[in-house]
Amino acid sequence: MGKKDKQFVSEITPMEVDFAQWYTDVILKTDLVDYSPVKGFMVIKPYGYAIWENIQRFLDGRFKDTGHKNCYFPLLIPESLLKKEAEHVEGFAPEVAWVTHGGKEELAERLCVRPTSETIICEMYSKWLKSYRDLPFLYNQWCSVVRWEKSTRPFLRTSEFLWQEGHTLHETYDEAQEETIQMLNIYKEMAEDVLAIPVVIGQKSDKEKFAGAHATYTMEALMHDGKALQAGTSHNLAQHFTTAFDITYLDRDGELKNPYHTSWGVSTRLIGGVIMAHGDNRGLVLPPKIAPVEVVIVPIASHKGGVMEKAMEIYSEIKKNHRVEIDDRENYSPGWKFNEWEMKGVPVRIEIGPKDIENNQAMLFRRDTLEKEAVSLDNLSEAVETWLKDIQNNLLLKAKRMRDEKTYYVKSFEELKDIMATRQGFVKAMWCEERSCEDKIKEETGVTVRCIPFEQEKLGDTCPFCGKPAKKMAYFAKAY
Amino acid sequence: MGKKDKQFVSEITPMEVDFAQWYTDVILKTDLVDYSPVKGFMVIKPYGYAIWENIQRFLDGRFKDTGHKNCYFPLLIPESLLKKEAEHVEGFAPEVAWVTHGGKEELAERLCVRPTSETIICEMYSKWLKSYRDLPFLYNQWCSVVRWEKSTRPFLRTSEFLWQEGHTLHETYDEAQEETIQMLNIYKEMAEDVLAIPVVIGQKSDKEKFAGAHATYTMEALMHDGKALQAGTSHNLAQHFTTAFDITYLDRDGELKNPYHTSWGVSTRLIGGVIMAHGDNRGLVLPPKIAPVEVVIVPIASHKGGVMEKAMEIYSEIKKNHRVEIDDRENYSPGWKFNEWEMKGVPVRIEIGPKDIENNQAMLFRRDTLEKEAVSLDNLSEAVETWLKDIQNNLLLKAKRMRDEKTYYVKSFEELKDIMATRQGFVKAMWCEERSCEDKIKEETGVTVRCIPFEQEKLGDTCPFCGKPAKKMAYFAKAY
Repeated sequence: MGKKDKQFVSEITPMEVDFAQWYTDVILKTDLVDYSPVKGFMVIKPYGYAIWENIQRFLDGRFKDTGHKNCYFPLLIPESLLKKEAEHVEGFAPEVAWVTHGGKEELAERLCVRPTSETIICEMYSKWLKSYRDLPFLYNQWCSVVRWEKSTRPFLRTSEFLWQEGHTLHETYDEAQEETIQMLNIYKEMAEDVLAIPVVIGQKSDKEKFAGAHATYTMEALMHDGKALQAGTSHNLAQHFTTAFDITYLDRDGELKNPYHTSWGVSTRLIGGVIMAHGDNRGLVLPPKIAPVEVVIVPIASHKGGVMEKAMEIYSEIKKNHRVEIDDRENYSPGWKFNEWEMKGVPVRIEIGPKDIENNQAMLFRRDTLEKEAVSLDNLSEAVETWLKDIQNNLLLKAKRMRDEKTYYVKSFEELKDIMATRQGFVKAMWCEERSCEDKIKEETGVTVRCIPFEQEKLGDTCPFCGKPAKKMAYFAKAY
Repeated sequence: MGKKDKQFVSEITPMEVDFAQWYTDVILKTDLVDYSPVKGFMVIKPYGYAIWENIQRFLDGRFKDTGHKNCYFPLLIPESLLKKEAEHVEGFAPEVAWVTHGGKEELAERLCVRPTSETIICEMYSKWLKSYRDLPFLYNQWCSVVRWEKSTRPFLRTSEFLWQEGHTLHETYDEAQEETIQMLNIYKEMAEDVLAIPVVIGQKSDKEKFAGAHATYTMEALMHDGKALQAGTSHNLAQHFTTAFDITYLDRDGELKNPYHTSWGVSTRLIGGVIMAHGDNRGLVLPPKIAPVEVVIVPIASHKGGVMEKAMEIYSEIKKNHRVEIDDRENYSPGWKFNEWEMKGVPVRIEIGPKDIENNQAMLFRRDTLEKEAVSLDNLSEAVETWLKDIQNNLLLKAKRMRDEKTYYVKSFEELKDIMATRQGFVKAMWCEERSCEDKIKEETGVTVRCIPFEQEKLGDTCPFCGKPAKKMAYFAKAY
């Protein structure tokens, strides 16, 4: 029969041995992604792209629920537009790709491949906005952006990535602030309820904020290796761009005014977060809500009478509500298939063979706890339903536990250094909010201020790093 | 109250006066699209993008039904890859945008912004394909592409446009051919059942085929002005690229072979087709299946007791199954709103005022025939349902009638010239299939061979343009 009865060799480096190599092994061996011939650019393979589609579906629905509409702005931005907002060009110019020729002709003005679209969108908004009656503008686009990165890793940092960018205009500062926080909260809902990744939300320090922003808000997640991942940001841009791009409207009082402005985005980086928050040494562990395959059915001795029929029956039943696959490949043994689907992180596996059918049962396996249980065929659908919900919840709980175990309070610079040298993780500490202090911490330890969280705790009165009076508690960590 | 009681001025140039200006007026005044600061690049505004989303939803579903999966390949392609297939580079090199700098550094090799992705995808496929067991490869991507065009018009021909491109590999020529035709048929289904645009399907002449294709199949639609629109193409690429890119697999017989290859795509150009196939001098006429708003409710004298309540009740009922909006803007008169929604092509309008409520009725208006009818509130949902179906069907019938009226048979070159000089349209004629004949027709009349249709008619034995023996009947037209 030519069955591959040889042992399944996943060849995934254990994460304790080399976390970076574990990550690379997992993403390549599970067919999420591949390297492309252009350095720093990735190919997102169907299994990886399906995760992105599931994230998109949820977010796009929430954006529309909250009154946002999608549109599409050009890929290429004239250099003169990029330069209109001073901080913005300073932040992005060093990392953009430049188009200099169209066909055989050299262009009169260079065009950059969008690294983000504030500038081109503001240029259009300045044409469109006339009256306070037109506000708010609530628009979003799904696209790819290019940022020329020196050192890249698939999903986490690549020279091109897929994302969404929302860009809104409002009459008042307060409305813009409300929008900024509303979108951050939608991101948090997505992270926790869909990706099962707990996040800390709060404000970025001035050093870490978006180039051109009045204030940047972020959600920060913790990975298995104790490093933080910035998983989504929402910016209150106030009138920085609307002034620079001369966006005005006639207000209720007959005066011409500049509107207030926000932008917010999440990207395929989230997939990297899912891998590093839930994965284990067998490979991926996917939350059911985003798993391309929620349930896989593996028929045992499928040539024997009745097995394939029963497997197909189960398949049809589960297909009504879930993404399900039946693995009827003839040239692989059941054991080999079990290993492969475990590596690919499928939440629930159903095994059904002649003996199971005799006993009116099937074997259920769950990827998160590796538990296996015989379930009566009469209750199979309900059991699958319950397990999927339970796996989704359990993954969030596990990730929370992991994060809490790797979260530390420090009261001195020495403690911070010791944690970073020995174990890594989130560090909570009081902080003076001074740029010089932040620079020094980064220089000596590689640690950055992840955010000043909305949920504050009072840990003391002085900054443990420089001794000045403390203003707020902040989260510190090494980050992706 | 400040109501704009002044007459609604759509300022749309009548199509009989100047069709090109009519088109421009319609797309700008209905907020489908706008020009961007980069010449030849368009901004797709929310109302236009929503049409694209509805097209995408249908097509993406059909692609998945037929076993295709989505993925994402890099935006930028190295020059050396573009050059690997000789005909392909010759066809595309003159119209690509070149990236020469990343950040501050000049690149060692120029990268082109993808004009289409055969080359980069084949490069990846050559890494991925090992065995006949891996076949077929059935992948698609949704993205934007850039082709540096000298003369552009929004949706119809722009330097950047949104599209999908499917790229598949197969064991045999026959399977690849079957896939090519299957996808063309899905496009035809989309055009006729969703966009309500009748299409002729057939094969492109050698002159008109895709650069690098073995055979290109097309669907061609006829616009109000008698010009043809190539609305979608599907290519059997045979082994042209798989040989050039050294894509091989180990076949059942132990031999290394090159697989057979297809690609197929449709773009935002389809939106231009919808505008020009259904629109009239009032503006857009949208088929319900792709209309961003299928039904608009305009309350009359909405300040009077019970009107808004009843309008909201109707809104909630219709919202269960359709995209519906309620226009409760206070600063516009009902008449102004009627005109605006007619211009925007909304299929069904519901008017409800105090007198209607007294009579337990609402007024229904349909955009395609401009008919208005009083309908009992007891049957309103059913009536809306029936009207939407009827409008969808009627638009296809109308477009078919229009096309048939503008389709001519010719038996001499003079007849062709006369038709093109006086009225334009689809011309059916026998043809020798010679390149020299095709070149001469184009040179003298601007007419191209649109396709050699699958549905052949025998009109004679000689080519009416050059007198040589005829091989097939073809469709000729001036085209967008």
